[in-house]
Amino acid sequence: MSSDVVLALDAMGGDHAPDMVVEGVAIAAKRFPKARFLLFGDEARLTELLAKHKAAAQVCSIRHAPDAVSGDDRPSQVLRTGRKSSMWLAIDAVSRGEAAGVVSAGNTGALMAVAKFVLRTVPGIDRPAIAGLFPTQRGETVMLDLGANVDCNANNLVEFAIMGEVFCRLVLGIDQPSVGILNVGSEDLKGNSAVKTAHSVLKSHHMHLSFHGFVEGTDLGAGTVDVVVTDGFTGNVALKTVEGTAKMFSHFLKESLSNSWMAKLGYLFARSALHRLKMRADPRRYNGAMFLGLNGITVKSHGGTDALGFANAIGVAIDLASQGFNDKIKEELAHLAEEPNGQPQLAAL
Amino acid sequence: MSSDVVLALDAMGGDHAPDMVVEGVAIAAKRFPKARFLLFGDEARLTELLAKHKAAAQVCSIRHAPDAVSGDDRPSQVLRTGRKSSMWLAIDAVSRGEAAGVVSAGNTGALMAVAKFVLRTVPGIDRPAIAGLFPTQRGETVMLDLGANVDCNANNLVEFAIMGEVFCRLVLGIDQPSVGILNVGSEDLKGNSAVKTAHSVLKSHHMHLSFHGFVEGTDLGAGTVDVVVTDGFTGNVALKTVEGTAKMFSHFLKESLSNSWMAKLGYLFARSALHRLKMRADPRRYNGAMFLGLNGITVKSHGGTDALGFANAIGVAIDLASQGFNDKIKEELAHLAEEPNGQPQLAAL
Repeated sequence: MSSDVVLALDAMGGDHAPDMVVEGVAIAAKRFPKARFLLFGDEARLTELLAKHKAAAQVCSIRHAPDAVSGDDRPSQVLRTGRKSSMWLAIDAVSRGEAAGVVSAGNTGALMAVAKFVLRTVPGIDRPAIAGLFPTQRGETVMLDLGANVDCNANNLVEFAIMGEVFCRLVLGIDQPSVGILNVGSEDLKGNSAVKTAHSVLKSHHMHLSFHGFVEGTDLGAGTVDVVVTDGFTGNVALKTVEGTAKMFSHFLKESLSNSWMAKLGYLFARSALHRLKMRADPRRYNGAMFLGLNGITVKSHGGTDALGFANAIGVAIDLASQGFNDKIKEELAHLAEEPNGQPQLAAL
Repeated sequence: MSSDVVLALDAMGGDHAPDMVVEGVAIAAKRFPKARFLLFGDEARLTELLAKHKAAAQVCSIRHAPDAVSGDDRPSQVLRTGRKSSMWLAIDAVSRGEAAGVVSAGNTGALMAVAKFVLRTVPGIDRPAIAGLFPTQRGETVMLDLGANVDCNANNLVEFAIMGEVFCRLVLGIDQPSVGILNVGSEDLKGNSAVKTAHSVLKSHHMHLSFHGFVEGTDLGAGTVDVVVTDGFTGNVALKTVEGTAKMFSHFLKESLSNSWMAKLGYLFARSALHRLKMRADPRRYNGAMFLGLNGITVKSHGGTDALGFANAIGVAIDLASQGFNDKIKEELAHLAEEPNGQPQLAAL
């Protein structure tokens, strides 16, 4: 895998920025020695930080940005007044072709709004989607959309399926990823009209896509399929429900294990095993939500991430860029647009 | 609390029916000595079973039903051909006024379809909802709708809020239950048009309802509000996501605790504490989904329930019936229909 990729980084986004960003670059530089980074943010602070991180300094160029987007800023406000922010300027670098992708731990809504406005969607993709990885009993599952689009039609869901499948193949290295549509039951007759129409399109089309059919909420934890397709409303609720349930379970576990001296003793012996459990079940260990479908790789790191998490998000962006994610999407869309008789299929929706 | 209630029971519904139903009645008879039951099902089998359960026999009358609905039957098929089934005849008894409510562990879709067809909705309620209880860090939360309506408008959500709030007060005994609408963020501007309109109606109206605003998926496990209102698509996915995540967590916990001899030793000491944890986090321990908004109490017990679970579902039906749930709903709707100036408010949606 070649990784002589240039990425634009929003150095001012995230709770622990810019320190965490510079430290993240230092970690990423070891993993991807050929990668180069454009660091957008306050020049004085970044110069000072890079002086302390020689490994990072060797692979970075600083680009001064006078403003920074805060976590409370409304996307519409950032669209109006945020053109000098580190976030906007980093995205601009992708649009001008200076960088293959952008990574930011800043405000999610603002990042999506500016990325959509500046980069536009890939031809053939109506709406970009936010994709993320979930822990499951079988390994991990990609789910999209996680909140970019609260209302989705069948066409959007079919495009999400294609993007999720390509992501799984290129980034996770899964050979024939299986794809399911999230629904209220697994029978073909269930659900709203969007999921039913998307189901029939994906079932009938002649691509390589391995379509499993409908899946339910229980299939998320079970890991029944590699890609779970859903609208941004349901996906966002499901993502946060997994987080909330995992937290509740941890809370109950802690309470149970401090209830009696027997249980406390048990905890002492099992402590390191339980720590591993916590790491494994925490959805946040998968850092980096991918904005798929834009002309340029865009990766959103968690706002509260540390340097290691930011380095992981950089890794995802490098994978997407160096594997030619967007070109593969275009190829798959071209397949889909042609029925065996040469007629476009999606247009009929 | 008076409990001289008559309930109609579908004795043939559920994996372990009819034995589990008769045993469940025996348990319920001790808890609610004044309650009486009409047992719909195969007369010969039920007579035989009641001969073995004197406690149940004293409070039951058998009503013969020649057919039974199976788990695989489609609701539409049951509507056409199921009029002699134990499920239909039990619901019929409610519609004729012989029983205040019905309890069934049979096919959920069929039960909702027949109950809607035979009982109709309470005047002022457009659609019935399925409500269920979730375990949370703070206690328990009622969520509705869990799958009766895949598409919901703002009006439906407002009605669900009212029904959920009354349920919380009457059945759970919570004084001022807080109500939240499930959304992709807690800010007023987020979400689709249905949740935004429902939010503004509930925020502005002058009932006693304690409206919290929007809640997110993480608030389910945290127990932020007493009542979570959502459409049936999202609610069903969230319910099953909680189940799937709890299963995944249990699976990871089991694996972690068998990984090393230290962990195994820890497990031996903590075993009973961990068993309590399993009971506490299992959403299925709350047996019985309530179909709210119908002219007659309808409670759906889990298909795989045992006698104790079925007795709990009977208890919920007795609570709803003896507290006059449907009358309270009508009162609240009357409040809502009148603005301070006497104009109806919901009609404007």
